[in-house]
Amino acid sequence: MLQSIRWENGAVYILDQRLLPEKIEYLKCTNYEEIARAIENLSIRGAPAIGIAAAYAVAVASIGLKSCCSEKFLSDLNTVFQRLINTRPTAVNIKWAVDRIKNLIEKNASLSVSELKDLVINEALKIHEEDIQTNKHIGENALHLFKEGCTVITYCNAGALATGGYGTATAPMYLAKEKGIKFNVIACETRPVLQGARITAFELMQAGIDVTLVCDNTAGALLRKGMIDFAIVGTDRTVRNGDVANKIGTYSLAVLCRENNVPFYVAAPLSSIDLSIPSGDMIPIEQRASEEVTTIRGIKIAPEGVKVINLAFDVTPAKYITAIITEKGIFNPEELRFKL
Amino acid sequence: MLQSIRWENGAVYILDQRLLPEKIEYLKCTNYEEIARAIENLSIRGAPAIGIAAAYAVAVASIGLKSCCSEKFLSDLNTVFQRLINTRPTAVNIKWAVDRIKNLIEKNASLSVSELKDLVINEALKIHEEDIQTNKHIGENALHLFKEGCTVITYCNAGALATGGYGTATAPMYLAKEKGIKFNVIACETRPVLQGARITAFELMQAGIDVTLVCDNTAGALLRKGMIDFAIVGTDRTVRNGDVANKIGTYSLAVLCRENNVPFYVAAPLSSIDLSIPSGDMIPIEQRASEEVTTIRGIKIAPEGVKVINLAFDVTPAKYITAIITEKGIFNPEELRFKL
Repeated sequence: MLQSIRWENGAVYILDQRLLPEKIEYLKCTNYEEIARAIENLSIRGAPAIGIAAAYAVAVASIGLKSCCSEKFLSDLNTVFQRLINTRPTAVNIKWAVDRIKNLIEKNASLSVSELKDLVINEALKIHEEDIQTNKHIGENALHLFKEGCTVITYCNAGALATGGYGTATAPMYLAKEKGIKFNVIACETRPVLQGARITAFELMQAGIDVTLVCDNTAGALLRKGMIDFAIVGTDRTVRNGDVANKIGTYSLAVLCRENNVPFYVAAPLSSIDLSIPSGDMIPIEQRASEEVTTIRGIKIAPEGVKVINLAFDVTPAKYITAIITEKGIFNPEELRFKL
Repeated sequence: MLQSIRWENGAVYILDQRLLPEKIEYLKCTNYEEIARAIENLSIRGAPAIGIAAAYAVAVASIGLKSCCSEKFLSDLNTVFQRLINTRPTAVNIKWAVDRIKNLIEKNASLSVSELKDLVINEALKIHEEDIQTNKHIGENALHLFKEGCTVITYCNAGALATGGYGTATAPMYLAKEKGIKFNVIACETRPVLQGARITAFELMQAGIDVTLVCDNTAGALLRKGMIDFAIVGTDRTVRNGDVANKIGTYSLAVLCRENNVPFYVAAPLSSIDLSIPSGDMIPIEQRASEEVTTIRGIKIAPEGVKVINLAFDVTPAKYITAIITEKGIFNPEELRFKL
């Protein structure tokens, strides 16, 4: 299985997912700015994966610091924290990873700068390792949904390449495959960046899982024909009332599922849950460049100068979500806040 | 305004819409097979336009015939009729145009072959001219929907280039623009062939109409935000119970409109209404080649060998449709069969 990111001798290697599925190429990053740019330009994407990348970015930055003391070390890192948090606003995982490292440094202010550097590097590695375990637990908690012969639809890529390990929405697929359960996956291509076509279809095919690609606008027709048993998607931020922000189009898929009585599940590691925000409509939604819509791999597909709205995410209200699957269990979205 | 098709000195000129918006190039067709292929490969598309193209194809074919008598003339044309009807199964307009010419020949069996040829050519020109008038009437019948400052969403291209004249869904836009009403159009790009991005956005921009392009998966989020006042789309076939077949994704848009209390209108010339079929689920739905999904302008955007479902159309049940706008007036879809 391809890895989205790895740490090796003080450098971070990021699989450049912009080139998938044609090319498998890792970017070697030795400073935090390179990692910040890799997050912004979608070389690495997926809420858990960019959380891990942010943690490694802090680790890489800390190595180079010549701070005199722990207070100075923390204040020197503040620029790094801010730069990383500002890369992409919707997924909460970057802030989650940054806050975790920040708190650790604050709690260990009595240590030397050199000891703190080790601590930060270890914490980044731990965040990565924990994500792999989280993926496994989500997979186990969702496995019972995969009945022999079922067809599941997924959206965007909440797969291995969106995380440190097996993915969130895809974790139960890898597990079901291992257990010999037969099932089919419908992958929505996910315009404009085509993570479904380029990444989900690719990684599932690599794993020998039966996957069929459709345009996003085709999911509704398949749901109406009764061809789909359930949907499972990832999330960039799940908030207090159970609303979920995820890739643009997730809301539409959820509405179409409910209209056709098809269960709609969200796989959400705790690192993506943000109980500080009361409602989905308060989640900042990233707008990205028009060119993502008007060109594909450099080829123009729309008239010169056309106006574009390119929302990267949308909000699915809790009422459309059958359950949220975390590493701690499966929850009704509206009850999530009482259970965690 | 660009014309999708025109007749000139016994030849048919078809705007090659596959090349839009980069190139404006007409294919000169002097035999029916060239026109049949232009329909199949989407050089010309849109239910009314392919009806007109089929009529011209019969005209072109008839010129070359050396039939001895009117019976032979009709039987010689049968191969042509079948070839045209088999090009694309979902839109009823091809069959409608072919049947109209066939009936005309049968009714005039006493004429000479040479007179019949003139009759056929004139009928094809009349079908084209009537379509232009139909577009105008649909425009007038839908004009009242365009309130100052409104935002309308449309899907695929039910525009000038899908018809002989002003389009069906776009006819009221051109009329509202002429009357000085300010409004905005959201055009969904319409994967896989991108008729919304390449054709609708293009023709509306050409006409100075305010148009914004979005990916198909973005319509839902805009509807939920209350940014859209109503939807208007075209149709390839509307049947007895008021169900409508149109470009894949129309069903999803209709469901999302209803979920957000946004009216959903279908512009349907009588030539696209087929009362012989009781329900939308009996409309033949064309499946097209995988390559439409896996490549864009020759560039691969999905893994080699991935399975694809590429439905060209879907069915929107009557219950999601606020009204059907024809050249004869606006009808409740379920009552359409009593009114026509």
